[in-house]
Amino acid sequence: MKIAILPGDGIGPEIVAQAVKVLNALDEKFELETAPVGGAGYEAAGHPLPDATLALAKAADAVLFGAVGDWKYDTLDRPLRPEQAILGLRKNLGLFANLRPAILYPELAGASTLKPEVVSGLDILIIRELTGDIYFGQPRGVRECPDGPFKGQREGFDTMRYAEGEIRRIAHVAFQAAQKRDKRLTSVDKANVLETFQFWKDIVTDVHKEYPDVALDHMYVDNAAMQLVRAPKKFDVIVTGNMFGDILSDAAAMLTGSIGMLPSASLDANNKGLYEPSHGSAPDIAGKGIANPLATILSATMMLRFSLGKAEQADRIDSAVKAVLAQGLRTADIYEEGTTKVGTEQMGDAVVKALA
Amino acid sequence: MKIAILPGDGIGPEIVAQAVKVLNALDEKFELETAPVGGAGYEAAGHPLPDATLALAKAADAVLFGAVGDWKYDTLDRPLRPEQAILGLRKNLGLFANLRPAILYPELAGASTLKPEVVSGLDILIIRELTGDIYFGQPRGVRECPDGPFKGQREGFDTMRYAEGEIRRIAHVAFQAAQKRDKRLTSVDKANVLETFQFWKDIVTDVHKEYPDVALDHMYVDNAAMQLVRAPKKFDVIVTGNMFGDILSDAAAMLTGSIGMLPSASLDANNKGLYEPSHGSAPDIAGKGIANPLATILSATMMLRFSLGKAEQADRIDSAVKAVLAQGLRTADIYEEGTTKVGTEQMGDAVVKALA
Ligand SMILES: CC(C)[C@H](C(=O)O)[C@@H](O)C(=O)O
Ligand SMILES: CC(C)[C@H](C(=O)O)[C@@H](O)C(=O)O
Repeated sequence: MKIAILPGDGIGPEIVAQAVKVLNALDEKFELETAPVGGAGYEAAGHPLPDATLALAKAADAVLFGAVGDWKYDTLDRPLRPEQAILGLRKNLGLFANLRPAILYPELAGASTLKPEVVSGLDILIIRELTGDIYFGQPRGVRECPDGPFKGQREGFDTMRYAEGEIRRIAHVAFQAAQKRDKRLTSVDKANVLETFQFWKDIVTDVHKEYPDVALDHMYVDNAAMQLVRAPKKFDVIVTGNMFGDILSDAAAMLTGSIGMLPSASLDANNKGLYEPSHGSAPDIAGKGIANPLATILSATMMLRFSLGKAEQADRIDSAVKAVLAQGLRTADIYEEGTTKVGTEQMGDAVVKALA
Repeated sequence: MKIAILPGDGIGPEIVAQAVKVLNALDEKFELETAPVGGAGYEAAGHPLPDATLALAKAADAVLFGAVGDWKYDTLDRPLRPEQAILGLRKNLGLFANLRPAILYPELAGASTLKPEVVSGLDILIIRELTGDIYFGQPRGVRECPDGPFKGQREGFDTMRYAEGEIRRIAHVAFQAAQKRDKRLTSVDKANVLETFQFWKDIVTDVHKEYPDVALDHMYVDNAAMQLVRAPKKFDVIVTGNMFGDILSDAAAMLTGSIGMLPSASLDANNKGLYEPSHGSAPDIAGKGIANPLATILSATMMLRFSLGKAEQADRIDSAVKAVLAQGLRTADIYEEGTTKVGTEQMGDAVVKALA
């Protein structure tokens, strides 16, 4: 089985190296092939998503992705900026289902800015639709304002949209994920204002008929943002569109205070997927050897489970990560007094050792 | 000076009654005229925003609004649902600037789900554009999907848009608000994905030239949602569009744990405004006499300050509210052991007494 390794920019290469080390330590061997992406893609081939990188990602059974972006690319035209690579991969590989767990490990309860009783034991799953919505809708651009009080002025515009089939397939993913958990699904919309999300709500309600064992509720996005702060543990699985999911999944991740621990999966219709940490490329600490590699290692776990059919190996890595946390090892981002501060490599080595 | 009083639904009438009591207790007398809105408007005249109510709001110097919405109207067609009243008022009165302070009173630090050190002393101001964006953009609806893999299926769609003049005027409001505070403004966008918000960012950057004394930074909306949870006190003033503002202002309000304390103002180009509590109509506790009237009383304060030019009277009410908190009086939503639980009317009476 072939895995495309796309380290990217900033701390990407350091953290991906640790995940690769962990994968190589498994009994099962995988074919790993590396290619540049993001700023690194631009440097190597003049484009954030070079053709060869896209071809590799398409040919592979799964993609392990680090992170992209660096201030030094801020002045490039938008189509050349690093983050376009991630949008291009999602679109070209049809990665419509983004799964983002927000889990608070008991050992890290102190890292959260929320009171321990509000977040300890937090375990929610946000499922974000990833190839539709206002991210890709056409038309978009800057035009002359066609009517109203600002007629004749320039205006920026974009199109939000969801087709029935797009909503159905992400709803199925969400109901099935809920069936494997606490059987509760919250669909987040803005049906009181948006036609797109009234339609979304109607279709999700229709798909629900096929999953009578799952309890479905609907929540407006503004209220969902509030409830995540007020009582996040009340959620089990949340499903929402691309734009709202972007905002809510980051907010949910931050509730844990340990975004350096959170993996993510972006899946296509056949469970092929791209796996990446929920955090960014953190150019400010790149190359210092202090970044937390655990979100990337746990992303590799998700990859083994969802795309490579190696649940047992995934369980072994998950246990190894829990073991190093129990040993008190912490990278700087999750360090607290009384624990042992380690660097990126040491953390990767510790996971490998705990695997044995 | 004439104030339109629109109590609305749920707890609206009870809390507005307290604010009216406080206004009547001032030396300055105002002409108050009441009209039904929301579900109450539908009951009275078959529409959530009856013509007479809109006419009154237009004729008045300011509008004091309670809250709208009740589950019993959930089955009505969208144009007849209570929340359409608030959208209609914003649009028809040109209330483009929504000012929502998120302030944590020292006495209420315990009410937050966040750790005291993260939120105590919180004082941020969110300025949300209120008449543009995807809320009102045309075209919108359900149509046949014109192209792509879902061609021929039904799709829901909406248009996001901002004209140059719309962005300029809200940017001016935001820079001027920042000038009166800590002189720091964060403009929240999603310029890495949306044409509308790349345009937004460009225009805000241009308006900044007129306010060299204000420090401007730009932040993506997903990051802003994270930073609000991680370190909310780092913000001073935030300005953003209608949709992102809807989500972020509610999240920011919930950080305080005391949304029953938070007022809001929605202003037109001439500082005429609509004033309402940041919380909703809470139909579950309506009529029980336990709702917190302070957000509405503080909304009246904003009204005196921004629309009626009575800053001194506004200060008096603000001090009275601080005094009742210092006395330990609390409605159920902000009650903690060691304080005195009071009902809606008692709280209103206490503020009137403290005014004297
Ligand atoms: C980089 C950006 C385009 C991207 C998004 O908005 O989807 C990122 O925020 C994410 O969530 O993966
Ligand atoms: C009721 C709804 C239409 C409204 C909005 O989305 O603007 C509300 O959430 C608000 O923030 O005032």
